[in-house]
Amino acid sequence: MQYKSRLTKPDGRTLLLYSRRPIDANIVPTSPSPAAVSLEGSHLRWHPMRGEWVAYARHRQNRTFLPPKEFNPLAPTVNPEFPTELPQGDYDVAVFENMFPTLSEKAVSPPHITGVDTFPAQGVCEVVVFTRDPMMSLGRLPLDHVALLLEVWGDRTRDIGAREDIRYVMPFENRGVEVGVTLHHPHGQIYAYPFIPPVPARENTQQLAYFEKHGVGLMATFIAREIRDKVRMIYEGPHAVAFVPACARYPYEVWVAPKRAFPTMDLMEDYERVDFARALKTVLLKYDGLWSRPFPYLMTFHQAPTDGRDHPESHFYLEFSPPYRSSDRLKFLAGTELGAGLFANDSLPEDKARELQGVEVTFE
Amino acid sequence: MQYKSRLTKPDGRTLLLYSRRPIDANIVPTSPSPAAVSLEGSHLRWHPMRGEWVAYARHRQNRTFLPPKEFNPLAPTVNPEFPTELPQGDYDVAVFENMFPTLSEKAVSPPHITGVDTFPAQGVCEVVVFTRDPMMSLGRLPLDHVALLLEVWGDRTRDIGAREDIRYVMPFENRGVEVGVTLHHPHGQIYAYPFIPPVPARENTQQLAYFEKHGVGLMATFIAREIRDKVRMIYEGPHAVAFVPACARYPYEVWVAPKRAFPTMDLMEDYERVDFARALKTVLLKYDGLWSRPFPYLMTFHQAPTDGRDHPESHFYLEFSPPYRSSDRLKFLAGTELGAGLFANDSLPEDKARELQGVEVTFE
Repeated sequence: MQYKSRLTKPDGRTLLLYSRRPIDANIVPTSPSPAAVSLEGSHLRWHPMRGEWVAYARHRQNRTFLPPKEFNPLAPTVNPEFPTELPQGDYDVAVFENMFPTLSEKAVSPPHITGVDTFPAQGVCEVVVFTRDPMMSLGRLPLDHVALLLEVWGDRTRDIGAREDIRYVMPFENRGVEVGVTLHHPHGQIYAYPFIPPVPARENTQQLAYFEKHGVGLMATFIAREIRDKVRMIYEGPHAVAFVPACARYPYEVWVAPKRAFPTMDLMEDYERVDFARALKTVLLKYDGLWSRPFPYLMTFHQAPTDGRDHPESHFYLEFSPPYRSSDRLKFLAGTELGAGLFANDSLPEDKARELQGVEVTFE
Repeated sequence: MQYKSRLTKPDGRTLLLYSRRPIDANIVPTSPSPAAVSLEGSHLRWHPMRGEWVAYARHRQNRTFLPPKEFNPLAPTVNPEFPTELPQGDYDVAVFENMFPTLSEKAVSPPHITGVDTFPAQGVCEVVVFTRDPMMSLGRLPLDHVALLLEVWGDRTRDIGAREDIRYVMPFENRGVEVGVTLHHPHGQIYAYPFIPPVPARENTQQLAYFEKHGVGLMATFIAREIRDKVRMIYEGPHAVAFVPACARYPYEVWVAPKRAFPTMDLMEDYERVDFARALKTVLLKYDGLWSRPFPYLMTFHQAPTDGRDHPESHFYLEFSPPYRSSDRLKFLAGTELGAGLFANDSLPEDKARELQGVEVTFE
């Protein structure tokens, strides 16, 4: 870890600052409202037909708080009369608990509902502000700033994953109005769950079955094949790769993975981080370069459960799910995707990889 | 079945017409293009990490065919120079194979891709035109027309499900630009799969486990509880119910179910159909009445696999997944929903049920 500072906001939430430079000890944390986070009414209910939990968080319905026009809660505070989530000062990345969390360690007892299993909305919802600059983007950050962010995600995975009540940690970024983003300041989120959610549970089962049968990881096999085939490769460095997977569900889907298998991102070594940052930045610059405009996406982190077991089958990677299928057409998830679970992709991964391969990128 | 007629379009596709009145034997079928449907390049690939198939259908990327402005391919043909999918004549409902199918019985051999399992894009993609009137909507159709449609869906489920290569039949409707609809003429689709897709597979496993443990169906138990509780009930008739499920994932989610358990909708009896049509129409009119405008949704049919086995655990029902969480805000599926599979619902099913209960509906 480079430099890290732990502060407490006026409303009681923790504020973590990370930086490539030493952090001034006199930074004064702020919060937009002095009121403590309340989870009144939040809880989980069991969906017996799908065999999964659903989270209810009524307090999130009113998650705007009528700030002055142009008020950006993720930019450093300028006018002390309107404090934001970020303090003044010199630092690179900030992490704090979401003011409107879906899951929280402050979860209250769930209501009793006849015939429905309920559970507290236990967990973690954090906001990760990538930079103090509201006009920046993840892909345009300098390489060592991206590498710091990878360290931050690893640091949070380790800390949150060590908690007894947490079974799974998932950092992600939603980018663009097309995926529902309302705050354009570059930021992501971290959700941590008191159980292994359905998607990673399934991925883990698949990886474990493959590992037990072949004695080698599914993702390692995948990567080896993509390196050999080359047709879908977007970036290959000494320690990291980025490629359109042969089984892409979204037209511009890309996976970014370290060559070495390790289950959670806190286990990424320094020598790997530089190359992984380069792979990630390459993908992001190609995305934005493709149509010469900011490219929206959902970026999710796929790692092993933090359930106290070893996961030799698990191989940490990032997955991009972009909502566009061409420059002017969105890929909607509808009947077959949401109702049945069969994705229909109107393009071939090989064709989309060629498009992305053709986008020139230059690092400053 | 009331009246049904089977014709062959000029391009070779089958056209089925259904009506409450006898159908004229002289109706001449049309197609917008004389070219036969081609599935060149379409195939399925196995996604080993998720353990599911993904469909590739490159020919769908160009699925507009440059018709004159205002040309509606689902309205009956007016100008013979620009034939549509529907012929002139008196009938209520039309069904035909999608001109740009994702899955088809005409599927070709899949390509060989190193290290990736492939399969033909085998299956069925049909379009169901609900009425000849482009300005109509499912909910505003007369009750006996809705009942006919239920019979049509049953007829197609029976016919398609009887095919050796089909394991699952899913009718659905996508309604509104918010869920990606480009043709506003009232219509739905039917997808049929050569395997049981992940979502119904999961639902079936859950229902089977419940049935084996309790000797009664999961959905029957669900319905009995909702009838007793009343708080989430939207419609209760002698043979059908509609309710916001206690475990709703979408704010305005509604399930419509027959009280009697039967696995596939071709097994719905005449006496049940009238009441089910009334339940369905009630939900649709309440949806449109809520904000006095057409209410977008995804409506999916949940039934048993057509795998040749008995499914006493299975209980046919309809599920509505509306994209709005309030009159001006969409519910986006993002990080936690798509990446992890935990849905975050910002409202309580009891509150949304109360809203829908308060909408007055009148049947003409």
